[in-house]
Amino acid sequence: MLFFRNDYGNGAHPAVMDALCKTNLELTEGYGTDAYCQRAEARVRDLCQCPQAQVYFVVGGTQVNKTAIGAFLRPWEAVIAADTGHIQVHESGAIEHNGHRIFTLPAADGKLTPEQIHDLCKAYQQEETSPEPKLVYISNTTELGTVYTKAELKALRQACDQWGLYLYCDGARLAAAMAVSDAGFADYAALCHAFTIGGTKNGLMFGEALVITEPKLAPCFRRCMKQQGAMLAKGRLLGIQFDTVLTDGLYEQLGQQAAQAARRLTEGLAKLGIPTLINSPSNQIFPILPNKAIEELKKDVSFEHWSAVSDTHSCVRFVTAWHTTTEEVESLLALLANLICEKE
Amino acid sequence: MLFFRNDYGNGAHPAVMDALCKTNLELTEGYGTDAYCQRAEARVRDLCQCPQAQVYFVVGGTQVNKTAIGAFLRPWEAVIAADTGHIQVHESGAIEHNGHRIFTLPAADGKLTPEQIHDLCKAYQQEETSPEPKLVYISNTTELGTVYTKAELKALRQACDQWGLYLYCDGARLAAAMAVSDAGFADYAALCHAFTIGGTKNGLMFGEALVITEPKLAPCFRRCMKQQGAMLAKGRLLGIQFDTVLTDGLYEQLGQQAAQAARRLTEGLAKLGIPTLINSPSNQIFPILPNKAIEELKKDVSFEHWSAVSDTHSCVRFVTAWHTTTEEVESLLALLANLICEKE
Amino acid sequence: MLFFRNDYGNGAHPAVMDALCKTNLELTEGYGTDAYCQRAEARVRDLCQCPQAQVYFVVGGTQVNKTAIGAFLRPWEAVIAADTGHIQVHESGAIEHNGHRIFTLPAADGKLTPEQIHDLCKAYQQEETSPEPKLVYISNTTELGTVYTKAELKALRQACDQWGLYLYCDGARLAAAMAVSDAGFADYAALCHAFTIGGTKNGLMFGEALVITEPKLAPCFRRCMKQQGAMLAKGRLLGIQFDTVLTDGLYEQLGQQAAQAARRLTEGLAKLGIPTLINSPSNQIFPILPNKAIEELKKDVSFEHWSAVSDTHSCVRFVTAWHTTTEEVESLLALLANLICEKE
Amino acid sequence: MLFFRNDYGNGAHPAVMDALCKTNLELTEGYGTDAYCQRAEARVRDLCQCPQAQVYFVVGGTQVNKTAIGAFLRPWEAVIAADTGHIQVHESGAIEHNGHRIFTLPAADGKLTPEQIHDLCKAYQQEETSPEPKLVYISNTTELGTVYTKAELKALRQACDQWGLYLYCDGARLAAAMAVSDAGFADYAALCHAFTIGGTKNGLMFGEALVITEPKLAPCFRRCMKQQGAMLAKGRLLGIQFDTVLTDGLYEQLGQQAAQAARRLTEGLAKLGIPTLINSPSNQIFPILPNKAIEELKKDVSFEHWSAVSDTHSCVRFVTAWHTTTEEVESLLALLANLICEKE
Repeated sequence: MLFFRNDYGNGAHPAVMDALCKTNLELTEGYGTDAYCQRAEARVRDLCQCPQAQVYFVVGGTQVNKTAIGAFLRPWEAVIAADTGHIQVHESGAIEHNGHRIFTLPAADGKLTPEQIHDLCKAYQQEETSPEPKLVYISNTTELGTVYTKAELKALRQACDQWGLYLYCDGARLAAAMAVSDAGFADYAALCHAFTIGGTKNGLMFGEALVITEPKLAPCFRRCMKQQGAMLAKGRLLGIQFDTVLTDGLYEQLGQQAAQAARRLTEGLAKLGIPTLINSPSNQIFPILPNKAIEELKKDVSFEHWSAVSDTHSCVRFVTAWHTTTEEVESLLALLANLICEKE
Repeated sequence: MLFFRNDYGNGAHPAVMDALCKTNLELTEGYGTDAYCQRAEARVRDLCQCPQAQVYFVVGGTQVNKTAIGAFLRPWEAVIAADTGHIQVHESGAIEHNGHRIFTLPAADGKLTPEQIHDLCKAYQQEETSPEPKLVYISNTTELGTVYTKAELKALRQACDQWGLYLYCDGARLAAAMAVSDAGFADYAALCHAFTIGGTKNGLMFGEALVITEPKLAPCFRRCMKQQGAMLAKGRLLGIQFDTVLTDGLYEQLGQQAAQAARRLTEGLAKLGIPTLINSPSNQIFPILPNKAIEELKKDVSFEHWSAVSDTHSCVRFVTAWHTTTEEVESLLALLANLICEKE
Repeated sequence: MLFFRNDYGNGAHPAVMDALCKTNLELTEGYGTDAYCQRAEARVRDLCQCPQAQVYFVVGGTQVNKTAIGAFLRPWEAVIAADTGHIQVHESGAIEHNGHRIFTLPAADGKLTPEQIHDLCKAYQQEETSPEPKLVYISNTTELGTVYTKAELKALRQACDQWGLYLYCDGARLAAAMAVSDAGFADYAALCHAFTIGGTKNGLMFGEALVITEPKLAPCFRRCMKQQGAMLAKGRLLGIQFDTVLTDGLYEQLGQQAAQAARRLTEGLAKLGIPTLINSPSNQIFPILPNKAIEELKKDVSFEHWSAVSDTHSCVRFVTAWHTTTEEVESLLALLANLICEKE
Repeated sequence: MLFFRNDYGNGAHPAVMDALCKTNLELTEGYGTDAYCQRAEARVRDLCQCPQAQVYFVVGGTQVNKTAIGAFLRPWEAVIAADTGHIQVHESGAIEHNGHRIFTLPAADGKLTPEQIHDLCKAYQQEETSPEPKLVYISNTTELGTVYTKAELKALRQACDQWGLYLYCDGARLAAAMAVSDAGFADYAALCHAFTIGGTKNGLMFGEALVITEPKLAPCFRRCMKQQGAMLAKGRLLGIQFDTVLTDGLYEQLGQQAAQAARRLTEGLAKLGIPTLINSPSNQIFPILPNKAIEELKKDVSFEHWSAVSDTHSCVRFVTAWHTTTEEVESLLALLANLICEKE
């Protein structure tokens, strides 16, 4: 069975697993106060060229979004997000559970524009009977695999500054974004008030690093984490893992491996004349296939159905990961070549 | 450095680590829908002799308490807990964050009595301007290392039934309780509306299993978990770990190892004439020592300061775990013998 | 100054004021347990032909929506509403503050259709990572002055039943709706799981009556009211007022007075050839006027700017109320006639 | 039937009712933006000698406590209150509903001491797994009728300043406190970060004025009020009432009337040799009576049962109000004299 279902299908990268095994029987303090966490925090600050950044390690993506946004906003303050945003479509109302409205903006390619932010803020500026837009949530890459460039991030930040908004970037797939765009750690630190460095989808068993560059955003963050159930007892597990992948560029390298597999797959699809829903440059690819071909493909490949496109065709999602091999991509393309020839 | 600080100081039991390593590169579906989770759920149901039990795996203790109680109660419904209860003293207001009052009852030994529940419910029965007591939170073992017997659990359940309350047992240290008392998995399933089987403090890297035996308590629990940020992407990590420890009695055995070390330590303290704050039969022990001896001891032993007892003496906490060896206990006792002779 | 700004611009209808004055120095129990509240509750049940209905009196509209929906739903359950719905645009996130997502549906005329509900529910049916749609919020009249007929309400209820949703009707302007449609109190009671009878905009100083016809929706509603700060100390003030307007058809009559004034105004606007944004049959009317005329009109008339329609024209809102006189309508029309002749 | 049940048993003082009647048919803007509210706000600022104070009018007591504390605190910040405090015993968990823990301190006389605050803050100072104490809630008068003096308020404020806490005074019975103590409006404004001026229990139909003297506490308070359902549509009703009672000392005078009646009653009880639960100097009085006498008394007097004192005796509560007459007090004392003679 070929696996193109997602980028969190296995455990951890062998180097991460090794580090966990080697340290397994050491005895340390809990709750992220250990030396491994401190070292990993220092690495993040270094990579971000941001010595004053506060760094916190959290197990999961919904958890880090919920905890961070809950710590940053007052209940009557609202989030602006793309209507495809993860917090809108995949977190079961976690943001609302903390009391916050999400204002969604249409985003065919998953990306917000400064103009949209301007328009929304203008509309709500004087509406005291509305929640107050206060934080722009983006993810890079987006839910549709598209990627904000550094210039786009800068433009968003300018729009945020103009309206007194915070810019928060969900980096669950930050490695995937960095592999195909011009923005690096230091750019995210410079342009976002806070952002996450996603581990779960890039070599870690689990773990997201939250980087808060705006000091006033997190006066008491550890209490907030604890209250939200987001503090891991054996916190060092997060420190050890991040320390490992953030050493010697492993994090970026794993992102590039996934990107390379994705590029190969995208090119192959193009050669086969298979259209895609959206032109994604990153590790999520959205081909449109005949429904019958999709049914056949399911026998050999694990992947996700995305959306119906017509009565006869649907969009599916293929995701590559750091462990996706050239052979796996070629096998998938061969299966598709076969199916397309047969069916159409 | 001897480690008696807590029972979550290391990673995982070697058998658990082996299982994680062996399955590391397998590719499975996420969010706890994989075969490992299903197998672990089945094991829990078997051990509990409760085929209709719903079983969910969650990463952390605060998380599982917050998610479960949030799912079980409406905002105006309140929790009854000992004033020493974990949700009261160690979770930063996680329960209140979901909207619920905690009614605390004095409990010198960490345990609630049916009489206390009767009295509180009688007092609040007709107070419509008060939150409505609806769930009794206990933990076994308690925060003070004391243990509810099966008869005591039965009596609490009767009190709950009389007042229409749910009985919820936080089993973060369930193995420690089972090692020194007469209640087993099936008893907890029969006597509690819901309870947890703690993994973090008994051989797992992380993980608590929530067992819901009252069907109406969790109509939509997975949505609730997701909303609370309590669903692990690579859910199988929980399934694999619980499957491992719940096979061939490893879970119980680890609890017994910790209990044995604790017994040896308790007996040693008694021989040395060192008094304890409370007569704890389980793996948390609370000796009272001269402050000077405590300062000396810190050089060689990692442990927690518990509370001041007088101007000259304080209570400390020693915790044993599955990995605590006879040698470690003897070394600690030798250090104490030395200090007590010198200092007193 | 002519007043067409809203329908809550004055105090209370003289009959209501009389009743408050007459009873002013009586001494009664508080919190809605007095005889006036009981009598008013009985009147509501009678008018609704629904002896089992639970009736609660609450001071304000946002308050009753927030309290009722908060009592009916669990945090992961969501509301479906028109994108123009009051809870979406005028309540500062009160629903989200209780933890609930609002799914908004586009509604050019402010009304939801059964098809929209079907489509949304179909889309979210199996999305366990989304909040669960559970309650359909409508208001009658809508925010745009449009009105659901009895047949439309019936169709909505059928859609709700099909998907296991509750139908909740915000009746802040129920009298305005009843004055121009075929649905009466008993129809609302038969077709909605819960609805409100708005007093603030129809002769009361303040007050909304919440009618819950589905028994399981409100097991403990008074506690919920108290927790939400929605219980009035001198609760009888609500009972006295509702008792007054619900006697001898005063409530309906006041609605008809507002409707009559609205009809006269609508006909006058048509004669003047002034277009409206929407064809509203009720007491909110949305004419489109040249911006210059609007500026002139402000000198003599109090009204609300609604939205820009073009660079030169805007939509404004005129609202009639039970106290709007024929003379006032004629004066407004004369002013408009003058301005339109001049300016165009 | 004599009425000593509470101080919110009737409607409004005649002067307030007159003002409401006179303005009843005026047409004004809503939501507290009218001229009456502005005038009343100015009066509050004048009386408080605090030109920078923000003043908001809210309908009810639970509502104003919930809204204010919810606006002032972040979810992980907690309230310190007496175990008899109104927010603890009479608001159904309204504070917890916003996510906040209430730390209760034992207070036999209903009053907190600076020492208690010091001790609690010392205990929680470094407990990062506990909610953070951040606001001291007191009420004056207290739930037991006792009264903080100016010196006591000053001492509490000093304790608050030392620990970075806000001092919030619930003034639901502020007039009752001012009638028997040395602290006036300006003292409350100088010593509290925020406090309320209660109207409901002192001549208004309803209404509490919230005075915020610490500017950073309420950056966006109207949005918060709206979100909490605490903004009255016909906001002027609050402005008119407060404007009336805050003119020419009516507010203080009504408090004194209640105090005078209370003094007479207290002296009468003493003469009859009837003991009281607590030595209350204000308008709530807590005599201890034989249970049989209580049963008899119920036939002629409306009052509240407070608590059982022994098998044969109970404490009841008599409350005087601005409208309590000398005759009513004498009648009550005569009834008691009769009963005591007979029964004992």
